[in-house]
Amino acid sequence: MGKLKKAEKDSGRLARLGEFGFIDRMARPFLKGLPKGIEGIGDDCAVLPRIKGERLIVTTDMLIEDRHFIRKRIPARDLGWKALAVNLSDIAAMGGRAKWALLSIGIPAGIDLDWLDAFFAGWRDAAVPSGVRLAGGDTTKSPAGLVINVVVIGMVRAGREKLRSAARPGDVIAVTGRLGDSGGGLKVILAGASRKRGTGEKVCRDEARLIRAHNRPRPHLEEGEWLAGRAGVRAMMDVSDGIDSDIRRIMERSGVGADIDLDRLPVSPELERVARRRGFDAIETAAAGGEDYCLLATVERKSFDKIAVAFARKFGRPLRAVGTIRPRSSGLRYFLRGKRTSLKSRGFDHFR
Amino acid sequence: MGKLKKAEKDSGRLARLGEFGFIDRMARPFLKGLPKGIEGIGDDCAVLPRIKGERLIVTTDMLIEDRHFIRKRIPARDLGWKALAVNLSDIAAMGGRAKWALLSIGIPAGIDLDWLDAFFAGWRDAAVPSGVRLAGGDTTKSPAGLVINVVVIGMVRAGREKLRSAARPGDVIAVTGRLGDSGGGLKVILAGASRKRGTGEKVCRDEARLIRAHNRPRPHLEEGEWLAGRAGVRAMMDVSDGIDSDIRRIMERSGVGADIDLDRLPVSPELERVARRRGFDAIETAAAGGEDYCLLATVERKSFDKIAVAFARKFGRPLRAVGTIRPRSSGLRYFLRGKRTSLKSRGFDHFR
Repeated sequence: MGKLKKAEKDSGRLARLGEFGFIDRMARPFLKGLPKGIEGIGDDCAVLPRIKGERLIVTTDMLIEDRHFIRKRIPARDLGWKALAVNLSDIAAMGGRAKWALLSIGIPAGIDLDWLDAFFAGWRDAAVPSGVRLAGGDTTKSPAGLVINVVVIGMVRAGREKLRSAARPGDVIAVTGRLGDSGGGLKVILAGASRKRGTGEKVCRDEARLIRAHNRPRPHLEEGEWLAGRAGVRAMMDVSDGIDSDIRRIMERSGVGADIDLDRLPVSPELERVARRRGFDAIETAAAGGEDYCLLATVERKSFDKIAVAFARKFGRPLRAVGTIRPRSSGLRYFLRGKRTSLKSRGFDHFR
Repeated sequence: MGKLKKAEKDSGRLARLGEFGFIDRMARPFLKGLPKGIEGIGDDCAVLPRIKGERLIVTTDMLIEDRHFIRKRIPARDLGWKALAVNLSDIAAMGGRAKWALLSIGIPAGIDLDWLDAFFAGWRDAAVPSGVRLAGGDTTKSPAGLVINVVVIGMVRAGREKLRSAARPGDVIAVTGRLGDSGGGLKVILAGASRKRGTGEKVCRDEARLIRAHNRPRPHLEEGEWLAGRAGVRAMMDVSDGIDSDIRRIMERSGVGADIDLDRLPVSPELERVARRRGFDAIETAAAGGEDYCLLATVERKSFDKIAVAFARKFGRPLRAVGTIRPRSSGLRYFLRGKRTSLKSRGFDHFR
């Protein structure tokens, strides 16, 4: 009853605030410190400054409640982070720097100002370290669920953009982070997290780490920009649907095949332990779970060792070789300890 | 029964096509003839060419089923047109040229490929004359209604962008088109259109014209670019919520007041006839109906006559003076035949 009243009160506050009041309230923290030359929120368009010697890159993602997230299963602050982070990951995949973002949000009746404040706090958590500025957007009521559409505009030095079409047979297939933690986290979220026995902690530490990987993925912006500066790096993309699905995009656009060594997929000890306890396959999750948001690059074989050593020195984490680009005719092949194998499950396809 | 079977079949076709197949199918007509230097759909980001001496402008709008449109009441082709046109109108309001668009679409179960083909045909109807290219987007299933988010990126010559904050007391308030046809059209759509007696026509011609104004608004891109080139034009915006609501945005951002002469609002004879027949107020609809998508500009008084004459010569339609910018202290005042009056209804606010 108390909660309901609060929701009603908040809903009333939102109504009294109106669309323009809401934009002003949300925009205020973002408008502070906007660089000169950008006309931000409140006009028909955002006016963005021009930057010499750079190419413009732009990406967009739509997140719909009960399709891409379950509102009760993700804290508002994590959702704010993730909505921006998945777009920053696309910028990272081009080797670019993120500059401006547009946020459209369709708000259902059940969402109050506290929820929105937390959402925007999470957005800022992701925006501040990447330097991306909110330049505009649209807010509206939604008669059904929450809908979020994010656009990020970035810059990449002309000629440095890394496309999916640049892979060549013989290239090493490499990833910049661990695979499967996010997919494992989703399994835990959907099944309900385990409490840690005999402690005050609500969720056991391994599972909490996987949930965090799912809810707060880190876009690999620095890694992407660094890799884009290496001539030996050919194709690049981010791991959003799972390597099993994503490598096919590179295969299609580059006209190549690929061999993946499943035993070389970087699986975290946390994922291994949780998978064993809950009875799912860690390797399958690493290959097809999706939403890892690290980068997948193909690297000229003769440059790989040098680049991998420099990467490890720069980031304190390895650039992991997980397979080899092959001629188109060989298709996608999986190997486990050198022997051909197959994946039971397939990458997430939004229409299936 | 036959219809249902067809829907099932189409839904099956859409599922078999999958997200990537769908993108390929929809993207094909847009990828044809993409200029060199743009990497279109299919990578993590669209890569856009840089243009010298221009500033980048960007706008976005989210359209949600049952909030911004009723799917059964608007043909798919008109919705495709309108989704793009309302964003082009924001570009027009800055005096810019539209260059690239991003389309995110959340597709519910009930939508078949024929519907989507019609939607994209309407999109192209609006895209081709304006020269805007689809550069990317996102497609996903929606568990509830149809959701459309459009972004348009445009260019404006540096220093020419017309902001809402530039109005000064004494400026003439002018509009580039008729007001209220779209609002009247919405009233007709919601109440059900009248058949024309004794003819084969389904909808009487006046009402059909208003419905068309609502469903297929023309973005005033040429007018906007031309007005942006006149030094005497100060603030500019498009009429999206109705002049009663929109002029307040200029008042807020420019720190001014405004007098509006209701009898000078350009009302079409069709709107007058339909309003008389259906018993609503044409002037109120012109002031507060919204979705006209013509432009509202404030023009330095001493330049107005010259600009209005040149506008009429260039476009064959008048630039109509409808009021005057006043000092902030006078607020928003309405006049009818020189006497103070008030508006009963208020402009549409998305949160009310």
